[in-house]
Amino acid sequence: MINVGVLGATGAVGQRFVERLADHPLFNLSTLAASERSAGKQYGNVVNWRLETPFPDKIAKLKVTPISPKAMKGVDLVFSALPADIAMDVENEFADAGIAVCSNASSHRMEPDIPLVVPEVNPEHLGLIDVQRDSGRDGFIVTNPNCSTIVMVTALAPLRKFKFTDVRVATMQAISGAGFAGVPAMSIYDNVIPYIGQEEEKMESETLKIMGTLKGKKIVNAPFKVSASCHRVPVIDGHTMAVWVDIKEPIAELKKAFADYKPPIKGLPTQPKESVHFFDDADRPQPRLDRMRGGGMTVSVGRLREGVRFIAMGHNTIRGAAGASVLNAELIAKKNYL
Amino acid sequence: MINVGVLGATGAVGQRFVERLADHPLFNLSTLAASERSAGKQYGNVVNWRLETPFPDKIAKLKVTPISPKAMKGVDLVFSALPADIAMDVENEFADAGIAVCSNASSHRMEPDIPLVVPEVNPEHLGLIDVQRDSGRDGFIVTNPNCSTIVMVTALAPLRKFKFTDVRVATMQAISGAGFAGVPAMSIYDNVIPYIGQEEEKMESETLKIMGTLKGKKIVNAPFKVSASCHRVPVIDGHTMAVWVDIKEPIAELKKAFADYKPPIKGLPTQPKESVHFFDDADRPQPRLDRMRGGGMTVSVGRLREGVRFIAMGHNTIRGAAGASVLNAELIAKKNYL
Amino acid sequence: MINVGVLGATGAVGQRFVERLADHPLFNLSTLAASERSAGKQYGNVVNWRLETPFPDKIAKLKVTPISPKAMKGVDLVFSALPADIAMDVENEFADAGIAVCSNASSHRMEPDIPLVVPEVNPEHLGLIDVQRDSGRDGFIVTNPNCSTIVMVTALAPLRKFKFTDVRVATMQAISGAGFAGVPAMSIYDNVIPYIGQEEEKMESETLKIMGTLKGKKIVNAPFKVSASCHRVPVIDGHTMAVWVDIKEPIAELKKAFADYKPPIKGLPTQPKESVHFFDDADRPQPRLDRMRGGGMTVSVGRLREGVRFIAMGHNTIRGAAGASVLNAELIAKKNYL
Amino acid sequence: MINVGVLGATGAVGQRFVERLADHPLFNLSTLAASERSAGKQYGNVVNWRLETPFPDKIAKLKVTPISPKAMKGVDLVFSALPADIAMDVENEFADAGIAVCSNASSHRMEPDIPLVVPEVNPEHLGLIDVQRDSGRDGFIVTNPNCSTIVMVTALAPLRKFKFTDVRVATMQAISGAGFAGVPAMSIYDNVIPYIGQEEEKMESETLKIMGTLKGKKIVNAPFKVSASCHRVPVIDGHTMAVWVDIKEPIAELKKAFADYKPPIKGLPTQPKESVHFFDDADRPQPRLDRMRGGGMTVSVGRLREGVRFIAMGHNTIRGAAGASVLNAELIAKKNYL
Repeated sequence: MINVGVLGATGAVGQRFVERLADHPLFNLSTLAASERSAGKQYGNVVNWRLETPFPDKIAKLKVTPISPKAMKGVDLVFSALPADIAMDVENEFADAGIAVCSNASSHRMEPDIPLVVPEVNPEHLGLIDVQRDSGRDGFIVTNPNCSTIVMVTALAPLRKFKFTDVRVATMQAISGAGFAGVPAMSIYDNVIPYIGQEEEKMESETLKIMGTLKGKKIVNAPFKVSASCHRVPVIDGHTMAVWVDIKEPIAELKKAFADYKPPIKGLPTQPKESVHFFDDADRPQPRLDRMRGGGMTVSVGRLREGVRFIAMGHNTIRGAAGASVLNAELIAKKNYL
Repeated sequence: MINVGVLGATGAVGQRFVERLADHPLFNLSTLAASERSAGKQYGNVVNWRLETPFPDKIAKLKVTPISPKAMKGVDLVFSALPADIAMDVENEFADAGIAVCSNASSHRMEPDIPLVVPEVNPEHLGLIDVQRDSGRDGFIVTNPNCSTIVMVTALAPLRKFKFTDVRVATMQAISGAGFAGVPAMSIYDNVIPYIGQEEEKMESETLKIMGTLKGKKIVNAPFKVSASCHRVPVIDGHTMAVWVDIKEPIAELKKAFADYKPPIKGLPTQPKESVHFFDDADRPQPRLDRMRGGGMTVSVGRLREGVRFIAMGHNTIRGAAGASVLNAELIAKKNYL
Repeated sequence: MINVGVLGATGAVGQRFVERLADHPLFNLSTLAASERSAGKQYGNVVNWRLETPFPDKIAKLKVTPISPKAMKGVDLVFSALPADIAMDVENEFADAGIAVCSNASSHRMEPDIPLVVPEVNPEHLGLIDVQRDSGRDGFIVTNPNCSTIVMVTALAPLRKFKFTDVRVATMQAISGAGFAGVPAMSIYDNVIPYIGQEEEKMESETLKIMGTLKGKKIVNAPFKVSASCHRVPVIDGHTMAVWVDIKEPIAELKKAFADYKPPIKGLPTQPKESVHFFDDADRPQPRLDRMRGGGMTVSVGRLREGVRFIAMGHNTIRGAAGASVLNAELIAKKNYL
Repeated sequence: MINVGVLGATGAVGQRFVERLADHPLFNLSTLAASERSAGKQYGNVVNWRLETPFPDKIAKLKVTPISPKAMKGVDLVFSALPADIAMDVENEFADAGIAVCSNASSHRMEPDIPLVVPEVNPEHLGLIDVQRDSGRDGFIVTNPNCSTIVMVTALAPLRKFKFTDVRVATMQAISGAGFAGVPAMSIYDNVIPYIGQEEEKMESETLKIMGTLKGKKIVNAPFKVSASCHRVPVIDGHTMAVWVDIKEPIAELKKAFADYKPPIKGLPTQPKESVHFFDDADRPQPRLDRMRGGGMTVSVGRLREGVRFIAMGHNTIRGAAGASVLNAELIAKKNYL
């Protein structure tokens, strides 16, 4: 068992990390770190548990530590649920202290020597860990993409063998993506908010890095363009998106590509049986009915039509956040980077 | 005053017609027609009024008639809120009996001699009324588009002077579009349904007819393509849509086109001061906040960005249904077709 | 293993039965019965699965039978998810044919020789099975209460040792209680409907029977009155209710009664660890956070205050419907009535 | 015209004040006061207008002043939309400076010489203004009740002639009651929160003062008890409540009392035609359909049943807040207290 910790363990994504790590077969959740206010107290007494799954009682008495490498002795890997402005420096500090960091924060995602990874899409990008180590650091940082980006790149992975240059995506994103208190009910109830700060930019840049190619010590961006329009809708969990991609092959071949898709990696502990589930139904996927497929880790695809158009949907706080980081950590362990 | 009637006066769109006609300056709402079950009874006793505006008491005692030209003596124009399967024959029957029909039903929209009109977009298409009359009929049928199509074509009207060939649109449509009982709460609450039957086909075909050109006795379709992806979201009223259009001119010119837009028609009684309202705000339009602009008749546009991308939003049962038909009737009256 | 069937297997409650029986340790789900339209086809092809848990694939190929004892050979017990108007005769037919019926329908609940049972509240009422058998029938009918009643009586059970005569209850009920298509989104979104047909009458009468005493061959009603006000709110699952009960003992004693409560029955396969969970928190229970406690079988109680007032909440389609019937069947099996 | 100002003009209640005062026949909205951050800027540039009615353009250029009597020269009356903690001192400061204060804040409501008034219920309580003046102050403070209390006391007013001692009320309150950002969407969506801080206490104490009797210089509390259970539900505007009251007279007499009710005051400019509207329908009132009755100022009552039980519903930010204060000011003007 590898001793792991969570940075920012009391927030929305932090709670999802705790939920997923409480009974993990590879990782022993030994340390929970949070802000000064909580440090020194028992986790069960400071966390306001807001998940629909029951609170994992065995974690209740764990004493919360401050967020610093010194305070987190014996930990080999930390999961970062920190806000982006704090994550930048803190994650570097942990990596410099010899600790592996799997981060859900956006701060380091686009740095050239930091892998931005979805195990079923670009596992080979972990090679950038060696580039980081070459620079003299013992630890390293590995990031996962933004929640919308993950859903889209996972849905595009089976289509990689076809040539395309133009991707358009209109998202219908869940409110949980903004954290527990991020969206006031008065703002989103009976409403659509056609704007999410920096979301379109993230989808447009992160996608090209993830689907790019590791050449030597560098990622060469994928040779297509993404144009995104991002919108918040009154849904609790699950990002739905309408995607257009300019593939010329017949729909039947794309359908086969989705249905037969085998990701380059298999057998990671929390990897779902299907990374991509393809629906033939006229009206699926739907977030409420399909977000928990594969324990929240499967991306669902449907309504494949001429155009080429299709719908992709995935759970934004599981597949799109904490679950993504944990899956990255499992890949890192399997590839013996620890 | 012109005596008018409503066909299908008890349903969702029928109630909107009654609401808009109860105090109209040109039209005297003299007859309400509904199914056999309601005929002979007072309207106030058979309608289950579900609008948030108060029931117009002066209409309460109007006796409901059957849906037939004979039963609706003295009426010069009828508004049709009939379901598409019934509308086909019934509307012909009224037109053959010398009555003008303004229909919200889809049945006749795509017939070559039936105008499909949005007054601010293609008023000249009313010329097809003469084509209908040439065929020996005294009355005529004029239709308005599907609720999503209206919002999009009104938003595209200011951009007509630019050249474009490719329109993509992803809609986030309100539940009222399916009628009072059309969408079960269990289906749409905390959910997105990425499919609305025949909606994409309607947006793709109707748009080309409306934005086409009347040449002689025929409409020549507009020379671009529309690719639509239509979705239902948990919003009561107001269809929001993300639109891409391949215009090459600088964004500043498009912005000016929206801001300075003057429709070809003005001064109709229920026409809003602004047919298109342009928002500079980062996060507008939003359906709950903006759907009632211009009494529900203004289409709002915002988030104009490189791509070219923008958001359009309009009230689907006012601008997109009953309000559209009434505005058409006002145009018909102004152009002396009655 | 006892062979069981489900009557009305394709509807909302029917699907919950299938979900709960697919892997049951005592019951072998061997037969699914539905309307003529579905009979003869494979269950997987006729059901429109609307639960958030994945469809149990092993059931997919089961051939649907008509709803009749003859068509359901080899079945010892059936669960009835039939609508009340059909249930009356059909359930009698099965009981007359020697089959045990666990019914969620309201038709037979108030008949004097039919047990209306919640295992943790009045298991001894199963004694009425003998009364039914005395009348010459081989099979029998056992019913569970209405979904709101179950939540309330389970919450009242720990308070039985105190004397009270006056219970008031105001419910805030979920939309799933009306079935998949029972509540149009246009009716309930951004709204409260302060009326649910026959619900108040059911809570007021069923409660007295359940909390009554079996004396000889009859139930003597409990000696208190219930006054209910029932309301539908925009919640998917989970009925919440504010309860007043005129107990004079100090709140601390009531709190202890809730916290220490041991039901008269334990160890049934789907019985939750806690039949009643007591919350000390200021703002619990809440349906979205607490409805799945105990796999949806625990009733949560909180906000115990002078008055005496408290809040009770339980999952209406699990604890309040299919789960209740299955728990009854488990009790029947344990008591050797099969 | 009387010059008036609004204290806290940019918040949720403040915006409602501005909406209601922009075209008022008695009051000239001459001054808008807000926090230091906004002071000195034009109102249209600092307010984030979130109401569904269009922003009143004529107010846009009004310069925002600091919240102090000195900065608000020429104002005879101010409406206070301040938070309770600030309102306590600031409102005293204005009253001491000779200005009339109509406050929606809770700070002063229960003070013995401050009238807590609903014009249709206890207009004579304005007599306490003289008590305030006797203490040497030129101005005075008049308050309106909490939003839930107003709805209940207005519904109870027609029943005053019957004797009762015991009132129970279970509320289903709208999210707007907590201000624009008060309730996170993640907290209330698909949920009920069975707790609103201090709300039950307010309903229980304010009701007795309002329905009490002015004897000499003092209010003698009404001789009954109120027991409240307060809950938040996913509704935007409109508080619905189930009320029990122990009246022994036949239901028909109570119904007549509601239907024939004439409030003690009539003809105030924003007073609705009906202060209380009585519904005979089985399923009314409902917040979405009925909250705007009487321009949001009518309280609706329905489902009157043995028990005695009934449902009351009113718009919480109009009748229950800003509209209540404005109506109080109209009464103050009519009674020549200015």
